[in-house]
Amino acid sequence: MTPYELIKKKRDGGELTPGEITHFITGYLHGEIPDYQMAAFLMAVYFRGMTKEETTALTFCIRDSGTRADFSRVNGIRADKHSTGGVGDKTTFVVIPIVASLGVKAAKMSGRGLGHTGGTVDKLEAFSGVKTEMGQEEFITAVNKAGACVIGQSGEFAPADKLLYALRDVTATVDSIPLITASIMGKKLAADDDCIVLDVKVGSGAFMKDMESARVLAQSMVRVGKDAGKKIRALITNMDEPLGYAVGNALEVVEAIQTLKGKGPKDVTELSISLAAHILQLAGVGDYDTCETKAREAIISGAALKTFADMIEVQGGSSADVYTENLPKAKFSKTLTATKSGYIVKINAEEVGISAGLLGAGRQKKEDVIFPAAGILLNKKVGDYVEKGEVLATLYAEEEVRFLKVEGRVLSAFTLGNTPSAPRKLILDRVE
Amino acid sequence: MTPYELIKKKRDGGELTPGEITHFITGYLHGEIPDYQMAAFLMAVYFRGMTKEETTALTFCIRDSGTRADFSRVNGIRADKHSTGGVGDKTTFVVIPIVASLGVKAAKMSGRGLGHTGGTVDKLEAFSGVKTEMGQEEFITAVNKAGACVIGQSGEFAPADKLLYALRDVTATVDSIPLITASIMGKKLAADDDCIVLDVKVGSGAFMKDMESARVLAQSMVRVGKDAGKKIRALITNMDEPLGYAVGNALEVVEAIQTLKGKGPKDVTELSISLAAHILQLAGVGDYDTCETKAREAIISGAALKTFADMIEVQGGSSADVYTENLPKAKFSKTLTATKSGYIVKINAEEVGISAGLLGAGRQKKEDVIFPAAGILLNKKVGDYVEKGEVLATLYAEEEVRFLKVEGRVLSAFTLGNTPSAPRKLILDRVE
Repeated sequence: MTPYELIKKKRDGGELTPGEITHFITGYLHGEIPDYQMAAFLMAVYFRGMTKEETTALTFCIRDSGTRADFSRVNGIRADKHSTGGVGDKTTFVVIPIVASLGVKAAKMSGRGLGHTGGTVDKLEAFSGVKTEMGQEEFITAVNKAGACVIGQSGEFAPADKLLYALRDVTATVDSIPLITASIMGKKLAADDDCIVLDVKVGSGAFMKDMESARVLAQSMVRVGKDAGKKIRALITNMDEPLGYAVGNALEVVEAIQTLKGKGPKDVTELSISLAAHILQLAGVGDYDTCETKAREAIISGAALKTFADMIEVQGGSSADVYTENLPKAKFSKTLTATKSGYIVKINAEEVGISAGLLGAGRQKKEDVIFPAAGILLNKKVGDYVEKGEVLATLYAEEEVRFLKVEGRVLSAFTLGNTPSAPRKLILDRVE
Repeated sequence: MTPYELIKKKRDGGELTPGEITHFITGYLHGEIPDYQMAAFLMAVYFRGMTKEETTALTFCIRDSGTRADFSRVNGIRADKHSTGGVGDKTTFVVIPIVASLGVKAAKMSGRGLGHTGGTVDKLEAFSGVKTEMGQEEFITAVNKAGACVIGQSGEFAPADKLLYALRDVTATVDSIPLITASIMGKKLAADDDCIVLDVKVGSGAFMKDMESARVLAQSMVRVGKDAGKKIRALITNMDEPLGYAVGNALEVVEAIQTLKGKGPKDVTELSISLAAHILQLAGVGDYDTCETKAREAIISGAALKTFADMIEVQGGSSADVYTENLPKAKFSKTLTATKSGYIVKINAEEVGISAGLLGAGRQKKEDVIFPAAGILLNKKVGDYVEKGEVLATLYAEEEVRFLKVEGRVLSAFTLGNTPSAPRKLILDRVE
């Protein structure tokens, strides 16, 4: 079939064979199919969707478009954890050390974010000296030594995703469950982990705004993971308000360390323990309750904190910085106070995230430099009562002028009411 | 709004303002919006459609993208006739002379076809010496002198259509009513006629395969024409079997001349008279019945034939060639005979059209040369009884080898049955 016929087949609701999808994608990668035909195809996929088989075929195409990792020389079961992205999500730095301290190897390749705050590797780079670029052998050695290592996934992995994403980004074809599935899972599967737990965020601060689409995405990703022979599970979790109190790279790492010390915010702690327990269960450590207990004990005993310190050390940083929470501090800070009293019924996570980005915590463009210390520390969470004049949040930046841009925005992200709103569950569903 | 936002708005079912459409189309024409964004937009339009207002705005954009004709120096009311394209459609050469012989000026700018057979100007060029490229002044002088003139619409008119069509053609976004409307009417409106009658073909040999989409297209085009201040009307006509007996450029012109002489096939004659009567009515010549009578009389009196001869003369040909039907004759011919007896219940117009094209009557690619004498002369029409061994059709070509490719195809285009099928009406509906 010609590219034209494949576009038309999808446009008319037909199902493409795996061979046809491979033909189309590789034709595009080789420059034989122009951007405009791919753009028309992507828009047709947006409207028509893809069957399970089509989605898996597309995912495998992306996975196979570049280097595929070989982690077979890692000693033990390898686990990965992936979040679809939320505001204040620092659970990776808690989950990874917990499972590694319990003998499951955390070999994580992560993306560099183009979001409100940096991605996982950007946050990790808030530590002085930490390096997130490694060759495969060096990475495997690090994982075997510390039990955990988190590096950036270089462009040699799943290059098709980069090309397709750039095109989707300018043709309004990003919001498509099969295309999101293939993008995330194509990259995940180019790594070589045995167990994967996905954290699919839903709510105002997440890409998926409603429960139904979050569930469909979770099911789609889990299915593709199983097609690839992985042990995989997804949690659907609430992202209506930021996770924890800290939003920003160094601020989030500090909050993660505090969580590893057993004094983290309740939501960060509970979600991290749950994600870790699911990974442990997939890895065969025991039933869920056993795994959850072990995860809690890893925090109480300090074993997880020590593993995190080992990981920072093996990645070129100083373990002392972990114990002393020695991360960059911002030159300027500014507190925002409540203009009236009341119960906090909502904190718009997206607005808080965008504001943190504007303070310097994220990139607007790929070339932008991230200021590790920039961000926002909330002082209150949904359900709390606040008195007029009490501190709602503190802004951090390297340039005072940045506060002007976001003060009003952060303040109006808080909605106050006369009665406390009913608490919403953090973990909304599980897909396996 | 950015191009991205406009694509997204259309994708999400929003209605673009005329200003937004103009912005998007002119941005594309100026090279500021790349093909891939236009391709995604066109596919979104394919799925979401366009409102009346959007369709009109897009049409006017295309109309205004290049030169706009000024026919104000034509003496009298100017009329145009447009067919969406069918197999064996030679009515232009009958309709135009009829209305011109009755004082309505036929100033027609026509496209060069990339279909089974050539377009109107290709057919006209089957006459020795006829020229179909003229500047505006020369064209107006010709119309004023002969009452009618048919020329090709050069690339300086509606250039946006050419660019958009080329992109639609390779991205499976041709079959969209608003896009078809804007393409046809954008070019029509770049000419400067007062009255337009559209012949929307429906059936196996037409672009519109079913009555419902033909009606929607007709309504859409008529509406846009009215928005542009034109007197406009559409007929929806049957294209299940070829129109008349002749398919091919010179063959069709000869059949048109025979029709002007009062000895044409019934379907060609009736459709031509009806189209002419509608134009005359729009031009204010009288009520429909009066106009129809006048149109018939123009054939009986020979006035229409004389006007056609005048037109050929003013376009550089010889009027004698009209009267003597002196058009190119093919070097080779081959008769096809029935392999069994029966009633002809169907003649697949599309198959006949494709076969005529393969014999040399049409272009597969823009660069292809048309052989004016190539084509097919049917000997039977739907409803006729044929004896085994009787001639069904005659093929004409300049190279004998071409017959091999199409013999079987043409034969199997005929479906024979034991009882005659119920006759189908030729003119199925009128939209005004």
